[in-house]
Amino acid sequence: MRPVAVVGIGKTPFGAFAGRDLRSLAVEAGEKCLENGHARPSQVEVFFLGNFAGPSFMGQNHLAPYISTALGIQGVPASRVEAACASSGSAFFHAWAEVAAGVYDLALVVGVEKMTSQPTPRVTEILASAGDCAGEIKAGSTFASLFAMIARRHMHQYGTRKEHLSAVAVKNHANGALNPDAHMRKPITLEQALAGKPIADPLNLYDCSLVSDGAAAVLLAPGERAAEFSEKPVRVLGIAQASDYLALDQKEDITTFPAVRRAAEKAYGMAGVGPQDIQLAELHDCFTIAEVIATEDLGFVPRGEGGPFAFEGHTSRGGRIPVNTSGGLKSKGHPVGATGVAQICDLVLQMRCEAGERQVPRHSLGLAQNLGGSGATCVVTILGTV
Amino acid sequence: MRPVAVVGIGKTPFGAFAGRDLRSLAVEAGEKCLENGHARPSQVEVFFLGNFAGPSFMGQNHLAPYISTALGIQGVPASRVEAACASSGSAFFHAWAEVAAGVYDLALVVGVEKMTSQPTPRVTEILASAGDCAGEIKAGSTFASLFAMIARRHMHQYGTRKEHLSAVAVKNHANGALNPDAHMRKPITLEQALAGKPIADPLNLYDCSLVSDGAAAVLLAPGERAAEFSEKPVRVLGIAQASDYLALDQKEDITTFPAVRRAAEKAYGMAGVGPQDIQLAELHDCFTIAEVIATEDLGFVPRGEGGPFAFEGHTSRGGRIPVNTSGGLKSKGHPVGATGVAQICDLVLQMRCEAGERQVPRHSLGLAQNLGGSGATCVVTILGTV
Repeated sequence: MRPVAVVGIGKTPFGAFAGRDLRSLAVEAGEKCLENGHARPSQVEVFFLGNFAGPSFMGQNHLAPYISTALGIQGVPASRVEAACASSGSAFFHAWAEVAAGVYDLALVVGVEKMTSQPTPRVTEILASAGDCAGEIKAGSTFASLFAMIARRHMHQYGTRKEHLSAVAVKNHANGALNPDAHMRKPITLEQALAGKPIADPLNLYDCSLVSDGAAAVLLAPGERAAEFSEKPVRVLGIAQASDYLALDQKEDITTFPAVRRAAEKAYGMAGVGPQDIQLAELHDCFTIAEVIATEDLGFVPRGEGGPFAFEGHTSRGGRIPVNTSGGLKSKGHPVGATGVAQICDLVLQMRCEAGERQVPRHSLGLAQNLGGSGATCVVTILGTV
Repeated sequence: MRPVAVVGIGKTPFGAFAGRDLRSLAVEAGEKCLENGHARPSQVEVFFLGNFAGPSFMGQNHLAPYISTALGIQGVPASRVEAACASSGSAFFHAWAEVAAGVYDLALVVGVEKMTSQPTPRVTEILASAGDCAGEIKAGSTFASLFAMIARRHMHQYGTRKEHLSAVAVKNHANGALNPDAHMRKPITLEQALAGKPIADPLNLYDCSLVSDGAAAVLLAPGERAAEFSEKPVRVLGIAQASDYLALDQKEDITTFPAVRRAAEKAYGMAGVGPQDIQLAELHDCFTIAEVIATEDLGFVPRGEGGPFAFEGHTSRGGRIPVNTSGGLKSKGHPVGATGVAQICDLVLQMRCEAGERQVPRHSLGLAQNLGGSGATCVVTILGTV
């Protein structure tokens, strides 16, 4: 395996864009990315699309060539990868593998989702199709209710408090307020976060990520060619994808995700680093409890200590390990299929010192964690400028 | 890139199975494949699922870990690849790439679709989502009508006759009648084929592939380890995926598919063979005209001569190059996401001399061609026992 670098990034703003269709979002991100990576469409050797539910949200399937041809990319393999909310993390993983292994030099990965064209009950139903439909979903579960059970159990097992969860929301809103591309740029207080409209107790509105439209793209190249495309290439030091059961009732302990631990272990091993070395992270905060558990499963803190760790400010921009300086899924927004690649873009912005007002001082080793469903898929990526 | 071999195959019968769900079909094919390849689930290092529209047909998304965990495969990357009717061809392509490049040794690829749970108009609508929904589909096109336009133009341009198309149906029905796993095992006469119920003129019922349930699986290993798993490994000599516009109105000439020609050129180049060397083929006969055009785009015959070539029996089991000895999509059935991998399985059966009554005498070099939409995706694979 040879070194691989991210040599271009491109994003649309995230938000609710009534006038935009799925393809125009994906094309905007892809074009920005190619421009950022000083590459022409004809140089792209393989195209990956991360998308969760375009057919259900928009009625359009066969999305990879639909988008690649609109970008002027023709003839090359164009494939859509679906892995629920980890769709573009998984697309990025396979693109990395094929570049690292020398199958291709230049790979373009686009993630996209257009969600706001459907009414909220239908959005909830489409999202629920990432769970076990014959079991937990048929029994009436939604992802909010599944993560509410996880939160309740975490509280029971470790003494995690509602304030701990709300602190994650407050932090991510504060970060998102500084991100010009974020869906919601509204700082909130702990009191506001605690008083949010109940969704699935103990989770309220401020514990849940946003339903958004948006797209993100990255360009990958072998390390030895990175300088052709970027003055500030960022290396993929470690990466792994792992999987587990969809249904919560098949897990031994719902307060931890084996797929996250497994992917992290492999990614750390590949990068030759440990959790104590990571300087900043973009974590999959589909719900506030998910960010708390991610900090534990990734080894940033011991099991059960994620809540106090967040509450005490250690994951804030000035803390020991800034988490979701982009605002995270909570405030930046969560266009499902775009999220994994957007996390990579946001890390790269920090690592290039291009994160503007939300720039953190230590930014040479970053980690992205992209989760699918209630832990059935996880992709962990470690990026470095070192 | 190192040599890669198919070391295990497994299929369910294709048909309309009211009592079977998507997962049980996929698991049956996967288990048969692992048994055939003398491998345990814990040995599988990466899992790929080819599936076109499980969420639309069955309401279940996030299908890769849903199926891999049911097969006892855990922890490893499990990803769904979607590329319309070429979904499992594309999944096979990426699995091959990652084994060939040394990222993994043992890869399991499963293709599956469960279609018959939806009423016919909804099936037609779901299939149409592989076309350009904002353009040709919104204007009322179905895939039958798109391929009818292609057939009409081919007739106009090259003098192809209805009898030529019907000869493809007669041949594929004759082959399917000998295949115990085929959906339809009913030989038909040319008169019957010509007199079928009109669907989209000039295509009638006998020109259209079947709506089926089914699954197929293959196990891939590096060539140097093939003997651990199979006494009759079959080598992947060449393979390529290519893409093109979804919409017919963006193509210069609708009687030929550039993605097929491009994928074929690359696959022949990799294998170091030409069309004249191919001894048998499984081609994507979603409609009879598609098989005729495939024989031309793959270089088996010059442009415009595919119709007479089929009519004169050159693609029959006793002909110059037997095409679709399995019965093809027309008679074996076309569970969309299963088709690409099923083609590989059917070639391997012939190449191992395990094809029973439909066995052909020359079987050391075979080609599979899997098409997505009206030519927007194509995967061409060349297998050899030489």
